[in-house]
Amino acid sequence: MPTRRNFIQKAAIATLGGALFPQITEAANPQLATTAAGPTILFQGDSITDAGRDKASYYPNDASGMDTGYVHHIVTHLLGSMPEQGLRCYNRGISGHKVFQLADRWDDDCLQLKPDVLSILIGVNDYWHSLGGGYKGTVETYETDFRKLMERTKKALPETKLIVCEPFAVAGGTAIDDRWKDFTAYRMAAKSIAKDFGAVFVPFQSMFEEALKVAPAAYWCPDGVHPSLAGAYLMKEAWLRAFSKL
Amino acid sequence: MPTRRNFIQKAAIATLGGALFPQITEAANPQLATTAAGPTILFQGDSITDAGRDKASYYPNDASGMDTGYVHHIVTHLLGSMPEQGLRCYNRGISGHKVFQLADRWDDDCLQLKPDVLSILIGVNDYWHSLGGGYKGTVETYETDFRKLMERTKKALPETKLIVCEPFAVAGGTAIDDRWKDFTAYRMAAKSIAKDFGAVFVPFQSMFEEALKVAPAAYWCPDGVHPSLAGAYLMKEAWLRAFSKL
Repeated sequence: MPTRRNFIQKAAIATLGGALFPQITEAANPQLATTAAGPTILFQGDSITDAGRDKASYYPNDASGMDTGYVHHIVTHLLGSMPEQGLRCYNRGISGHKVFQLADRWDDDCLQLKPDVLSILIGVNDYWHSLGGGYKGTVETYETDFRKLMERTKKALPETKLIVCEPFAVAGGTAIDDRWKDFTAYRMAAKSIAKDFGAVFVPFQSMFEEALKVAPAAYWCPDGVHPSLAGAYLMKEAWLRAFSKL
Repeated sequence: MPTRRNFIQKAAIATLGGALFPQITEAANPQLATTAAGPTILFQGDSITDAGRDKASYYPNDASGMDTGYVHHIVTHLLGSMPEQGLRCYNRGISGHKVFQLADRWDDDCLQLKPDVLSILIGVNDYWHSLGGGYKGTVETYETDFRKLMERTKKALPETKLIVCEPFAVAGGTAIDDRWKDFTAYRMAAKSIAKDFGAVFVPFQSMFEEALKVAPAAYWCPDGVHPSLAGAYLMKEAWLRAFSKL
């Protein structure tokens, strides 16, 4: 019931992956888990991406380096369903970060990794921390900084495929109040940036709004910002749909 | 590419779940995440089930109480795809345990939870710890203890649906040597017990053997006992197939 996939179908999925990464044609080898240089997928963002990962575990594909958020589920799916690819998946989200903090560590935490696919989910702190947290940034700051970061990335890594995830605020979450209607402008900015830079956009906001018809925020995303296991599942599914469009 | 599911299909899956648990007919309510009493699913076992979970987080559906093993992925899938069910999922695996240690804590860690579905993966330590570790148990000890545990469970919880997972040893894993051919008898005992007690059996050994045709043990299960993220993905998929047969 919950799945119809089997190993044969996984092989078909891996073939599709081969179309995405045509440079990878060799079968897996015994060193695959630690040394094979397959395509690199990098996840960047804030606490939603971080999800409490062990920062000391910065090697690719390591469980404790992913922890228990949406990235963990995406990476597990990719590694499990595309074993021939030799994928190298990195999580470099850091809790609390805004766009300018991604920019501060972009050389170390993005450019030097030379990702084939870069996924970014950023923006909730750019707004949240301006609500009495002493941070003075506005939506213009967010959009300007984000565009600069994308331009810098495009220049350094012109071949990298981009996924821009929509920052979201789930109504009914304990941290979300009426002020969060202003967060819509941040979401629109992210969508506009995705379009302008040829990135695939992952519409997390509408996804959660659809999910709220079935169960409340407490089920999907208790504070409105950080997903539950069930919310992480939805994020994984939506991200994989976006990934399939690359 | 990696998924064709969408929210509509998830609703269909949830309906199937409704057939499995027909007593649950109400829609989710705002307290669902913490208090609704939907069907209970319990995972029992050793370190493979434990996966480093936070033992202090013993509430249902909590991410840190699942940690990063196969249980985490199964629970995330179930919660994400069956939001109407109000499922309560518990992980009670404890690293290093053998069958007699499950029996020692069975009242607290199984019977009082009154699971609607009980999944057990146990056996690798029953053999491993006999290889010079000072433990004197044999395959007869394993089978006798396991049958007693199942009889006790059937008597206390006659309505509980049972899933018996096959203990496995992945050839090529760093902890696996020639002596492990004797582990086959343990696997066969688990299969026999599954049959005799009307449990659905999850054939993890053949699943990993199939996976070894595509990538080495280092990719799926580096030490031959504890799965990687990719191995946990395969275990999740196999378990969900078994679950669909309940």
